[in-house]
Amino acid sequence: MKDFHIERPDESLRTALIEKIDNLTKPKGSLGRLEELALQIGLVQQTLSPTLSHPHNVLFAADHGIVEEGVSKSPKEITWQQLSNIVHGGAGVNFLCRQHGFKLVVVDAGVDYDLPYHKGIINCSVRRSTRNFLKGPAMTHEEMNLCLERGADIIGRIHADGCNVVSFGEMGIGNTSSSSVWMHLFTGIPLKECVGAGSGLDADGVLHKYRILQQAVDNYTGSDSATDRIAWFGGYEMVMAIGGMLRAAELKMLILVDGFIMTNCMLAASRLHPEVMAYAIFGHQGDESGHKLLLQAMHARPLLSLDLRLGEGTGAICAYPIVVSAVNMMNEMDTFAHASITKYF
Amino acid sequence: MKDFHIERPDESLRTALIEKIDNLTKPKGSLGRLEELALQIGLVQQTLSPTLSHPHNVLFAADHGIVEEGVSKSPKEITWQQLSNIVHGGAGVNFLCRQHGFKLVVVDAGVDYDLPYHKGIINCSVRRSTRNFLKGPAMTHEEMNLCLERGADIIGRIHADGCNVVSFGEMGIGNTSSSSVWMHLFTGIPLKECVGAGSGLDADGVLHKYRILQQAVDNYTGSDSATDRIAWFGGYEMVMAIGGMLRAAELKMLILVDGFIMTNCMLAASRLHPEVMAYAIFGHQGDESGHKLLLQAMHARPLLSLDLRLGEGTGAICAYPIVVSAVNMMNEMDTFAHASITKYF
Repeated sequence: MKDFHIERPDESLRTALIEKIDNLTKPKGSLGRLEELALQIGLVQQTLSPTLSHPHNVLFAADHGIVEEGVSKSPKEITWQQLSNIVHGGAGVNFLCRQHGFKLVVVDAGVDYDLPYHKGIINCSVRRSTRNFLKGPAMTHEEMNLCLERGADIIGRIHADGCNVVSFGEMGIGNTSSSSVWMHLFTGIPLKECVGAGSGLDADGVLHKYRILQQAVDNYTGSDSATDRIAWFGGYEMVMAIGGMLRAAELKMLILVDGFIMTNCMLAASRLHPEVMAYAIFGHQGDESGHKLLLQAMHARPLLSLDLRLGEGTGAICAYPIVVSAVNMMNEMDTFAHASITKYF
Repeated sequence: MKDFHIERPDESLRTALIEKIDNLTKPKGSLGRLEELALQIGLVQQTLSPTLSHPHNVLFAADHGIVEEGVSKSPKEITWQQLSNIVHGGAGVNFLCRQHGFKLVVVDAGVDYDLPYHKGIINCSVRRSTRNFLKGPAMTHEEMNLCLERGADIIGRIHADGCNVVSFGEMGIGNTSSSSVWMHLFTGIPLKECVGAGSGLDADGVLHKYRILQQAVDNYTGSDSATDRIAWFGGYEMVMAIGGMLRAAELKMLILVDGFIMTNCMLAASRLHPEVMAYAIFGHQGDESGHKLLLQAMHARPLLSLDLRLGEGTGAICAYPIVVSAVNMMNEMDTFAHASITKYF
């Protein structure tokens, strides 16, 4: 399998970072989460004066065989239609990328459609849709590896372009199903609590989805290894995101984690390489049932909770200005000594 | 008393706004709080295509007589020292204003110091510090009126400069004490639950502060009228903010509400003119004990919860990009019909 060499950030700078943060002109701790972020980013970048450069949102798209079991409210063709909308600039992720200065990279990981690649979609398609994981593995191990490699390659390219902070988004009708099963298998939380409404199922729809997924889990004949579980229940776009996250951590980039699906990708990535979590900033706690439980299980505190459930990277991008603020705090705030202020904590 | 003529937004546009929001290319409701904000802003501005122009953060500063009772961890001189730091651009509010394109307006409402007005501080000083409200009213009704008028005037001026969205900040050692008493008197929540650590009191300090404030409430000989309570326990910077908020609502501007102190100013403002709440966007739930209870009592849902407790307007300004996103959503997202996407809700 593709290997990644991720280092935990060197902790030796921690004391100096805390001292700098505590001497800025504010009561100690009074910038709350900004101070926590500044510490994390300083450790990742190994500097007292961190920077953010060329933020990218990498959006992986693919279709899912499990959709034929009626687990999604949205028809499968929404995947390519919405991807086409994104390429034309009219989707949710587009205005957010423009607002916050993100370059948007759209990747076909396995959409079941003849996509207009000439319009800027990067063709990394592994296969037109995964297989139906109710009946067997969604993808082969070869396909999984291909996804990890291609996801990693894309991050390598944007890193070479000067990017040091990346968010990941997805578009793939059916991918909350894959996510719920991963969450269940990797955290041990009962499947029922991992299953939600996706793009808008009613109570009967959620129950049907749960039953299908429970059946799929019962039918599973793979091992307890992370790779077997990832391949059997995963989506191509999700495994490509995992490859991207692992490569980003290897390159010491900051990783902005979006909603339910991308949080599950970070979860799965952390089962392969636990060190990846040191590079993760959780942007948003989404409206999808189970996301709160999942974040708690991962000891992750999201920056925002705005009831978004759109995916595409939108929640992570919305959180970006807070990350920028943490960096600006470190570079622009004055110290008590320099400003001649009585240090009041 | 100074009078304000605040209209509730005309509700007749609500249906058209909801229809527009629901036809954007996303599952219905999937942009959560952005959709709620877009509806509120559309109603305030009476348009399907809202705009935000020339955001300002107006920071009122003043000193508080109650500080002589030892209710604050920070010494009184921090008020002018920090104000000086703000004027030099090195404080928390400064980097946030720069980041989000806010013009910062700094107003002396009653600081006990010879401030450098030539450096851009607007002199609206009513008196050098309020009186100690343990022993009598903090301010006279004449002073209260002067504050309302001067706060209103400043908002009138920035509105004339093209501003339609304003956040309010404060700097005033001792002003969490005034805020806690207002909260207690205006909501009926027991005083103990309204009192917190301010700029960093320990448990003994909080207990002492509570006892002083309880004594002050016991000593109160004013009426149950909002004006009597505001004058007796208020701060000049706080009442000026109330005047500013009421004038902003009168002018149909959006009001970004910051932390514990500014939320109490909005509370007091709403006791004078309940319609003001329609114009309020609550930016941040702060770390100060009692703020969560207060927001609940006001049926207000803050956009952020980042454990900030700095004041100055910082929490409100941090929330601004989310407000911008709501407006961008309305102006930049495509519709299902135009993008030729199957409407999947």
